Amino acid sequence: MSQLKLTYFDMHGGRGEPARLAMAIGGIDFEDSRFAFAEFAEVRKSTPFGQVPTLHVDGVLVTQSDAITRYVGKLAGLYPTDAYQALLCDEVLDALEDANSKLVASFGLSGEALKEARTALVAGPLTLYLTWLEQQLQAHGGEFFADKRLTIADLKVFAYVQGLNSGRLDHVPTDLVARVAPSVQARMQHLAATPAIVQYYAKFKA
Amino acid sequence: MSQLKLTYFDMHGGRGEPARLAMAIGGIDFEDSRFAFAEFAEVRKSTPFGQVPTLHVDGVLVTQSDAITRYVGKLAGLYPTDAYQALLCDEVLDALEDANSKLVASFGLSGEALKEARTALVAGPLTLYLTWLEQQLQAHGGEFFADKRLTIADLKVFAYVQGLNSGRLDHVPTDLVARVAPSVQARMQHLAATPAIVQYYAKFKA
Repeated sequence: MSQLKLTYFDMHGGRGEPARLAMAIGGIDFEDSRFAFAEFAEVRKSTPFGQVPTLHVDGVLVTQSDAITRYVGKLAGLYPTDAYQALLCDEVLDALEDANSKLVASFGLSGEALKEARTALVAGPLTLYLTWLEQQLQAHGGEFFADKRLTIADLKVFAYVQGLNSGRLDHVPTDLVARVAPSVQARMQHLAATPAIVQYYAKFKA
Repeated sequence: MSQLKLTYFDMHGGRGEPARLAMAIGGIDFEDSRFAFAEFAEVRKSTPFGQVPTLHVDGVLVTQSDAITRYVGKLAGLYPTDAYQALLCDEVLDALEDANSKLVASFGLSGEALKEARTALVAGPLTLYLTWLEQQLQAHGGEFFADKRLTIADLKVFAYVQGLNSGRLDHVPTDLVARVAPSVQARMQHLAATPAIVQYYAKFKA
């Protein structure tokens, strides 16, 4: 087994969280390298595109969150081996990356500009992507997004919903997911209560 | 074998091209559904996010270009089965999707605003991503981006370079790739001259 080191913000959620969760659930040993937001300016200097997460595989630096999540997902047994099911899994990852990018574009704004941008996001893309997730979940049986079992698609949705519900995002109502995508919200609450995930987050409680 | 229909602009290049090339090279039968730019407003209405390409698999609509490229890449035997090589392949796809998104953000601009945006892109992200591609290619032996053989990573780079070199992008010098990433340019020229790709494009010549 390769030596793995994942570098990402010291927070629950975001682009690094699906990979962390996949490795935790799959029992994959890895170095969980976390840094404070204030350190980001320094950390990003050692990355090719100024972005995190990064994964070191036996010392080799690899970038791109979904590529990383897919890789560790395979190691953890949380990625479909069937090509069509993998397509459905990847479609969710890519769609949420589009949604993430739109949200990230509002970071750095403040005051009225932030309020205006976030209000437009909630009315537009955030609702659109959540509505689509709700349809996808129901189209595939209501439990999982692909392969009729837990895959990294569910973990990607989990981290995304975690962010929207967190209250950390000003002007994003914390009941948006529950209102727009009630089945998704219910599934993610169910997932949060599974032993592997409870155990993972329990580590961080004092 | 599933019935496949790929819907994308009637042009060479862009987000739909790697999937078309993968299917052509791999001898995968598919319906090549092309539409003119003027029809996009109508076509996008039947897609969940107003984006193309889309792939119909036995009639089921699937979105997201990289997910589609990966799926048909597997069918065509152009995707690594080794998880680490697949990671390197996916890293290239995701990085170029980031680069594409920055470029696409300049579409719709005109006049001085377009010139300013494109000049900043050339000096910044376009050069950064090309420099990284050059390093990646050399780090993996100078021939292929992953798996020491042709994969969808090479086809994604091919379509990207095709776009930058095309002269269709105002204020993007058509010698940018050759100057910043000479090995990448040489490899893509080599690829363009391989029989499968020559044969593919020959179909479109009157």
